Amino acid sequence: MGSAGGALSDGAKVLCRELGRQIAQHNCIIITGACPGLPHEAVLGAKEYGGLAIGISPGLALQEHIDRYHSPYEEYDALIFTGSGLMGREIEGIRSCDIVCIVGGRSGTLGEFAIAFDEGKLICVLRGTGGIAEHIHDIVAMINKQTDAEVMYDTDPKSMIEHAIEKHHERVRRGVAYSLRVVEG
Amino acid sequence: MGSAGGALSDGAKVLCRELGRQIAQHNCIIITGACPGLPHEAVLGAKEYGGLAIGISPGLALQEHIDRYHSPYEEYDALIFTGSGLMGREIEGIRSCDIVCIVGGRSGTLGEFAIAFDEGKLICVLRGTGGIAEHIHDIVAMINKQTDAEVMYDTDPKSMIEHAIEKHHERVRRGVAYSLRVVEG
Amino acid sequence: MGSAGGALSDGAKVLCRELGRQIAQHNCIIITGACPGLPHEAVLGAKEYGGLAIGISPGLALQEHIDRYHSPYEEYDALIFTGSGLMGREIEGIRSCDIVCIVGGRSGTLGEFAIAFDEGKLICVLRGTGGIAEHIHDIVAMINKQTDAEVMYDTDPKSMIEHAIEKHHERVRRGVAYSLRVVEG
Amino acid sequence: MGSAGGALSDGAKVLCRELGRQIAQHNCIIITGACPGLPHEAVLGAKEYGGLAIGISPGLALQEHIDRYHSPYEEYDALIFTGSGLMGREIEGIRSCDIVCIVGGRSGTLGEFAIAFDEGKLICVLRGTGGIAEHIHDIVAMINKQTDAEVMYDTDPKSMIEHAIEKHHERVRRGVAYSLRVVEG
Repeated sequence: MGSAGGALSDGAKVLCRELGRQIAQHNCIIITGACPGLPHEAVLGAKEYGGLAIGISPGLALQEHIDRYHSPYEEYDALIFTGSGLMGREIEGIRSCDIVCIVGGRSGTLGEFAIAFDEGKLICVLRGTGGIAEHIHDIVAMINKQTDAEVMYDTDPKSMIEHAIEKHHERVRRGVAYSLRVVEG
Repeated sequence: MGSAGGALSDGAKVLCRELGRQIAQHNCIIITGACPGLPHEAVLGAKEYGGLAIGISPGLALQEHIDRYHSPYEEYDALIFTGSGLMGREIEGIRSCDIVCIVGGRSGTLGEFAIAFDEGKLICVLRGTGGIAEHIHDIVAMINKQTDAEVMYDTDPKSMIEHAIEKHHERVRRGVAYSLRVVEG
Repeated sequence: MGSAGGALSDGAKVLCRELGRQIAQHNCIIITGACPGLPHEAVLGAKEYGGLAIGISPGLALQEHIDRYHSPYEEYDALIFTGSGLMGREIEGIRSCDIVCIVGGRSGTLGEFAIAFDEGKLICVLRGTGGIAEHIHDIVAMINKQTDAEVMYDTDPKSMIEHAIEKHHERVRRGVAYSLRVVEG
Repeated sequence: MGSAGGALSDGAKVLCRELGRQIAQHNCIIITGACPGLPHEAVLGAKEYGGLAIGISPGLALQEHIDRYHSPYEEYDALIFTGSGLMGREIEGIRSCDIVCIVGGRSGTLGEFAIAFDEGKLICVLRGTGGIAEHIHDIVAMINKQTDAEVMYDTDPKSMIEHAIEKHHERVRRGVAYSLRVVEG
């Protein structure tokens, strides 16, 4: 999850392209909000290695996806049309991921991070991609809430994915990977 | 889309298994509500031929999918956790399909048919699977509304999928396959 | 819940206006899809007697409610913007009602009926309003599923609301009014 | 929108109770996530002055609202059952408010703020209520995105509501209060 718009540095794009490659090489499925920008770089990287890409679209149908949201579609194996708008479709993308990757980002990505944190997800922050990703550490301190969320930071896509998969398996064994604990507030 | 519960005849199961095989053999993706019953038979058929299966789950997370909804998950390539309950998750399944297949079914399937009809989808009804599928023709007459929906009936999965794909391509050319026309009421 | 468009008879409008009055006079809140047509007649009736009206809008915001969905807003005490489109917003309207009234209707109303039936609601069908309402009895037979739903039929708004409120209280005592039993299929 | 759980100071509760009173006295409707904690204090304040309170519930039905989410219901004029869970129901609460008030809060409230900011809402932050509210100024700087959102800060509920209503009317005149501009990323 990350920046779909705004100024995107070449460095961030390169990192996200590599992130997508690593996701595919580790036989993971990439799920994004089917938006342009950094997440799309990751999709392009995943497709280089034959990875499976699923997009959770804000649109009611493909035409709206293209015309209203100016979003890509050709690279995706499947698009899920939530019809819930940019911020409404975020919840499902997050819920459907075992590992949530944060790259760059602004208020959309911040919303996704908040959902992922509140719903106790495993979250990987790719440092060096700018935006909200660089502030997650401070935001976690501000939140001051205990959920099942665990936040990992890395600057290298390969080691990030490797550690995240390892951590995911450990969470499966501990029984927190696939459940949702209701934590009020 | 079809019966997840109730009494399911062996004949209906055989037809749905074959439907899944045909979907995969025609390089289509099967999208279901990730429920047991007839849709799961189709998923099993699709997997026999290496097809891709995506399930739109009613649950908030995998644990709820299993414990509360008693639903299968192992055969799916990806599960989308809507967390919207049995009837809430239907809308996305329908919106994300190019071709909506109706097999058997009760009130859940009737809701899916109503969504598909109202949102102007291409709908295939597999006759011989019992339930709501056998009454769709009468229900269309009761609805008495003009949308972009087109309803096809068949008793053979192979010819149904072939005709549906042909019809879909024709709808793409006409410009009605990927858009959503707002039709009040 | 009922016809927002199509040909609406004067008789159906008069019945719905009276239905709204009865809802308000019995201190009930009217919840609709904030659409034009028969449901809006009921809202107008409810406002004659100072009733509270809540609309579950298909739009993302008021502007879209007006421009895209051509829907009324001035008579409502509150609008809830689901941003989920015409068929996506139905689920919440149904879930939030203790008593679901069906008047006239086409595929949208059929979808609402299917949700209400599947989720075990108390459903009142106002006969004499045309459309789907006249076919609900047949459709219930087609569905052939046991849920907590109970369907009442009447041709007079006043006696319908009175009997429905009585029945609702009886359902509260029985413990089925406020719970949602998961019934597969 | 604000803290439903965690340690809530008496000072924050007193401020929120007064906030609710002010909302009702200015003839505004209070919309919350129907949760306990600070938002409920505001509802109690609003009811002291006969205000209207609408709760956007995470539950599928009242029973789930009470049993699973341990949430209040008696003080509400109407509950909307989204059935989308704690983080899924947030989007509608935000979309349905003209003025979004942030009090205290942790990751849930952060998610609501992110939605409100991204969807260009008028946002009032009540300082002195602890939690995320005290950090919104820093978070806005981190987001670094231009939307139609405007963020106001105050420590006094009365002056906050008065200024917010004034600002809202000005936004209506400017044409940004009721529309949703799609801003990618």
